[in-house]
Amino acid sequence: MSSWGEGVKISIFGESHGPAIGVVIDGLPAGQKIDMQGVYLQMSRRAPGKDRAATPRLEKDIPKVLSGMLDDTTTGAPLCAVIENTNTRSGDYKNIMSVPRPAHADYTAFLRYNGFSDIRGGGHFSGRLTAPLVFAGAVCRQILEKKGIKIAAHISSVGDIEDSRFDPCSIDDELIERLSSSTFGLIDQKTEEPMRALIEDCRQNGDSIGGTIECAVKGMPGGIGSPMFYGIENVISSIVFGIPAVKGIEFGAGFDAAKMRGSQNNDEFYYDGDRVKTKTNNHGGILGGISSGMPIIFRAAIKPTPSISMEQNSVDLSEKKQAVLDIHGRHDPCIVVRAVPVIEAAAAIAVINLISEARCHES
Amino acid sequence: MSSWGEGVKISIFGESHGPAIGVVIDGLPAGQKIDMQGVYLQMSRRAPGKDRAATPRLEKDIPKVLSGMLDDTTTGAPLCAVIENTNTRSGDYKNIMSVPRPAHADYTAFLRYNGFSDIRGGGHFSGRLTAPLVFAGAVCRQILEKKGIKIAAHISSVGDIEDSRFDPCSIDDELIERLSSSTFGLIDQKTEEPMRALIEDCRQNGDSIGGTIECAVKGMPGGIGSPMFYGIENVISSIVFGIPAVKGIEFGAGFDAAKMRGSQNNDEFYYDGDRVKTKTNNHGGILGGISSGMPIIFRAAIKPTPSISMEQNSVDLSEKKQAVLDIHGRHDPCIVVRAVPVIEAAAAIAVINLISEARCHES
Amino acid sequence: MSSWGEGVKISIFGESHGPAIGVVIDGLPAGQKIDMQGVYLQMSRRAPGKDRAATPRLEKDIPKVLSGMLDDTTTGAPLCAVIENTNTRSGDYKNIMSVPRPAHADYTAFLRYNGFSDIRGGGHFSGRLTAPLVFAGAVCRQILEKKGIKIAAHISSVGDIEDSRFDPCSIDDELIERLSSSTFGLIDQKTEEPMRALIEDCRQNGDSIGGTIECAVKGMPGGIGSPMFYGIENVISSIVFGIPAVKGIEFGAGFDAAKMRGSQNNDEFYYDGDRVKTKTNNHGGILGGISSGMPIIFRAAIKPTPSISMEQNSVDLSEKKQAVLDIHGRHDPCIVVRAVPVIEAAAAIAVINLISEARCHES
Amino acid sequence: MSSWGEGVKISIFGESHGPAIGVVIDGLPAGQKIDMQGVYLQMSRRAPGKDRAATPRLEKDIPKVLSGMLDDTTTGAPLCAVIENTNTRSGDYKNIMSVPRPAHADYTAFLRYNGFSDIRGGGHFSGRLTAPLVFAGAVCRQILEKKGIKIAAHISSVGDIEDSRFDPCSIDDELIERLSSSTFGLIDQKTEEPMRALIEDCRQNGDSIGGTIECAVKGMPGGIGSPMFYGIENVISSIVFGIPAVKGIEFGAGFDAAKMRGSQNNDEFYYDGDRVKTKTNNHGGILGGISSGMPIIFRAAIKPTPSISMEQNSVDLSEKKQAVLDIHGRHDPCIVVRAVPVIEAAAAIAVINLISEARCHES
Repeated sequence: MSSWGEGVKISIFGESHGPAIGVVIDGLPAGQKIDMQGVYLQMSRRAPGKDRAATPRLEKDIPKVLSGMLDDTTTGAPLCAVIENTNTRSGDYKNIMSVPRPAHADYTAFLRYNGFSDIRGGGHFSGRLTAPLVFAGAVCRQILEKKGIKIAAHISSVGDIEDSRFDPCSIDDELIERLSSSTFGLIDQKTEEPMRALIEDCRQNGDSIGGTIECAVKGMPGGIGSPMFYGIENVISSIVFGIPAVKGIEFGAGFDAAKMRGSQNNDEFYYDGDRVKTKTNNHGGILGGISSGMPIIFRAAIKPTPSISMEQNSVDLSEKKQAVLDIHGRHDPCIVVRAVPVIEAAAAIAVINLISEARCHES
Repeated sequence: MSSWGEGVKISIFGESHGPAIGVVIDGLPAGQKIDMQGVYLQMSRRAPGKDRAATPRLEKDIPKVLSGMLDDTTTGAPLCAVIENTNTRSGDYKNIMSVPRPAHADYTAFLRYNGFSDIRGGGHFSGRLTAPLVFAGAVCRQILEKKGIKIAAHISSVGDIEDSRFDPCSIDDELIERLSSSTFGLIDQKTEEPMRALIEDCRQNGDSIGGTIECAVKGMPGGIGSPMFYGIENVISSIVFGIPAVKGIEFGAGFDAAKMRGSQNNDEFYYDGDRVKTKTNNHGGILGGISSGMPIIFRAAIKPTPSISMEQNSVDLSEKKQAVLDIHGRHDPCIVVRAVPVIEAAAAIAVINLISEARCHES
Repeated sequence: MSSWGEGVKISIFGESHGPAIGVVIDGLPAGQKIDMQGVYLQMSRRAPGKDRAATPRLEKDIPKVLSGMLDDTTTGAPLCAVIENTNTRSGDYKNIMSVPRPAHADYTAFLRYNGFSDIRGGGHFSGRLTAPLVFAGAVCRQILEKKGIKIAAHISSVGDIEDSRFDPCSIDDELIERLSSSTFGLIDQKTEEPMRALIEDCRQNGDSIGGTIECAVKGMPGGIGSPMFYGIENVISSIVFGIPAVKGIEFGAGFDAAKMRGSQNNDEFYYDGDRVKTKTNNHGGILGGISSGMPIIFRAAIKPTPSISMEQNSVDLSEKKQAVLDIHGRHDPCIVVRAVPVIEAAAAIAVINLISEARCHES
Repeated sequence: MSSWGEGVKISIFGESHGPAIGVVIDGLPAGQKIDMQGVYLQMSRRAPGKDRAATPRLEKDIPKVLSGMLDDTTTGAPLCAVIENTNTRSGDYKNIMSVPRPAHADYTAFLRYNGFSDIRGGGHFSGRLTAPLVFAGAVCRQILEKKGIKIAAHISSVGDIEDSRFDPCSIDDELIERLSSSTFGLIDQKTEEPMRALIEDCRQNGDSIGGTIECAVKGMPGGIGSPMFYGIENVISSIVFGIPAVKGIEFGAGFDAAKMRGSQNNDEFYYDGDRVKTKTNNHGGILGGISSGMPIIFRAAIKPTPSISMEQNSVDLSEKKQAVLDIHGRHDPCIVVRAVPVIEAAAAIAVINLISEARCHES
């Protein structure tokens, strides 16, 4: 299902080459003034063609708000925003109708929908469907910022090239600000050149490359999240895996914690004035599913763009035989770059839901 | 919330030192004959004291079915099973009431429940609460087995010591059978000795160690799962993060995919007779959130047991000052071992939900 | 929330005087050919100005499908349809901004949304929001018809004037067909004249009148619905009360059953060939929340249109004093007439969910 | 499904003649001191044998709390309470195994569960399953009372004999108190004698009788509830229809409103000091699904007890032929009496959910 959430529900619709895509956000508080320029900024970070490492396909991606806002202020009614599909060239994808692209959802969509899904451009599975997610996240994010909760992500790696990581115990406001408006977000900007070189090399070879994105939520109050199945990890992962190409997620020390001893991994508590903090943050701000007040830190693994220009072996589903696939569309050699604001958006939507869930259980 | 699921809902209750723990499973099909010995076997794999690497605390953990079964056959009514708490020594935990244990949920539970949670033995956050999860999973698992869907997991690593991985394209039935009844499940049994030695070393030092668990679902039909937020990764991760100490999850090649080029990561399709398969399985049986018919493979990162016997720095929440914590309970130096059947159980519950969700959308 | 459903979720958005209204339907089976003319027919039954008893406001109400359909066939992706708002004259409602209209949601919306809701024309509370509901219902209805499930409703009363009731044990296919395309649906067409006279009298007097609608679902298979909270009554009522002005619902004999003895109310079972039927249908096709195979019958009570042209006492919320309200908009004197297809639509959406839920629990 | 709710979820389990019945309540605020005697009082109002008009079957119905409470104070963990089944005589129901009782769920459960449901005593469909609902309601009610929200219901009619109705605009605290502890709750106590006489007459004749229950929620703050599908009517009806034998519900003037003109039905607003009130309360405290601050008023129609001692025609499902049913169990001739506290309980659970949902949407 393309619907998600409890306190604030989002329902995403659209197909890559249909008339439009969009989102309904139900359950937002009324009276929230939204800076629409800030929303467009987030959307432009995701939009193709904004960064030179990305696909040259141009999208205007200017969302039209159909309901839920008056004078840029939420009315409390479901907020629906629609983005028209304009610059589409469906010819590029013609031969994939019966020959599924490796690592794409073509084949599984074929099974799931008995051959009826609109597979042009990936249909509902297209990365383009993350545009309404970014819209929803940008709105939620502004509401969170008024509560002092800030979210930022960066490209933590592309292939083997790694950026520095967030200082998990103390994240600089200036860094957050810089990352929040960047189209190639890095902590250590010296990493940019080798990363771009690697991406360019992949493009030249008709290949693509994967990477990871690290995301931080600063200012999360302690005591948010519920044990077991409504913990912060459950909620964040259940939305983050809705982003195409995400194949893994880890919180705090994550998979590294699996190699540690307890004496290394356990984060000591201490008093900083009258606030309880931890000296290290291997727990990523989450214990028992609940926030500790330390920054929430998670990393997502993004697989390489499935669409590559190299010849690939596949099958022809109509003729039931082997086939060779040769795709000549316009593809991002590294979707990690554009996925950064999408991860932030997903985090924002998750956090607003976690906070609204926490309110439910107040006396 | 300790409730999860749509087609089959589970609702877990209980606290470590309260009268009992248990689970309600709502929405099971009626008329399913359940082999209760098989259920007990699964529960005994998780129970402490079964394997010499685990805590010596003895639990009988014999669940009493209060409803939903007649002659070991599901009636369709909610199935409730209760496990009494008997062998508890709450004295062991006395000094943690105001001094939260590092890496435990003590502090966050304190925030979340305003100091009212029953923290004896971890309360509702105790690993003991995975017993009813294993019960629920064992029931679901038997229902899945009748459909030819089999689930098995193994200790894929403890600290730096790694077991072999599943052959992601073809998992042996005998291996599944062996793992499904093992209390120290490994693919390559030569790994057992060094792993046990490492765990023993941790125990001797009052320390603990983390690890990873790899789980496979064989026989999953293609076309199961829905795009975006009800994909297989979303559903599995949203329940798996309900297991205490899980800090990461990856599907297929997971974080390794983030280092690959598309040409390496893309799994080629081919016809094996009239069945479409992939030559490699970096996609872990999932594309666009939907099953491809290849085995579902995922790995979870388990942090080291937070309870260690070494002295640790913490804070005293009542006196608002620093404190030193010295715990003398009985603890597993490596909960990875006992978490294996829990991961399998969570996978079984996730899969039965995914399959029931798929049925909803049939015409 | 304006989202509803589990197997098939609908999410309705829009405000009366905003740019557009619409619906996202998530979870429909793929490959369903939809007769769009049939959908428009249902929408036109609800549209104002279609029947002379209704408001003269003209709406084109031609929905634009943004996603989820290709060649009038469902693709499986969320189906989004949008209806633009065109013929609106917001001047009519100007003085209600601070003076809430009696029996409208103006005042409660003011409380709920802290004064931020778009109250022009009722905003999200407007009866106009039932247009996307009818769209969704019309799509679901066609899918149900392929399974032999048919739905029809009629004006069972306006004020004290009553139409005949359905024969609860056997509903004629021709009657269903006639009602399904009628704009003033009655079983006994002799009732039409006095009803219209009563409505016209109300209009002349600047007043309005309430009524009831009876709805039948024919061909519902037995065994659908779940005990307690997912019974047919729960599911139907939870959506039907989403229709503005509905203040009551009863199933089968309903409130009349409350006056009966068991010996009168109990419906005897008998064999009609090898089918089990009941001689009477006081149970309205539902026992224990589950369908018996007899027709589902329910009636909804619709209050009189709150908007009347007579002077009414109210309060001025900005000046905090008494006020007199004198509304000069265009209003239906009897919304019961146009609510008939809306009730049918809600029933169709409820039934498709009940059927999809039933599938979840199959073995 | 026997699970219900969002902010506070309840999951009811058990079968009439199984080992036990009970409920899990997930999501309650922590730190709520519960007066357990008050809870037992509510349960005893529902228990059989308490009022002479009810069935002589004795149940101790003393719930055992398995989790979620410490020193009668909620811990925040799921609260599970179990009631053992003791005084059961399953012989009484032997012949119903293949001969479904008219107006009972025997036949529909047979269809729904393919013959596997535990039908002894009605199994999961038994009225006995309302005991855990009353438990859950009694806990929620005490939490609401601390917020000044009070709930009371009375027998508004038995057959044709009607009690007075609540003054919908102003409900006396003393009346609420009296009703809240009554086992034969009436506003006008002069109605008691004729009602008891009618019930006794039914008992003598081996027959039964239906009735209605009116329920009021006093002190409900304005602005609670969400438009469309999470309105107060939707939420209350979706749980109230979970109570066996309820066949109708109406809010405020309900079905009477359907006979009124707008000029009669519209409730005028006025200022009472600085509080906005309405002069009449035909809207039952709800406009557009949202509370107005006036008392919430609803009425439920309860069908006559299906179990009667008179001979009834039915079918034999195993032999596939007509059959005559002659039941000699112990039955309530009028379950309306014992359903009063059940309706109150359902209202309490609904209201606590509505209030927790409202908190979600605060900024």
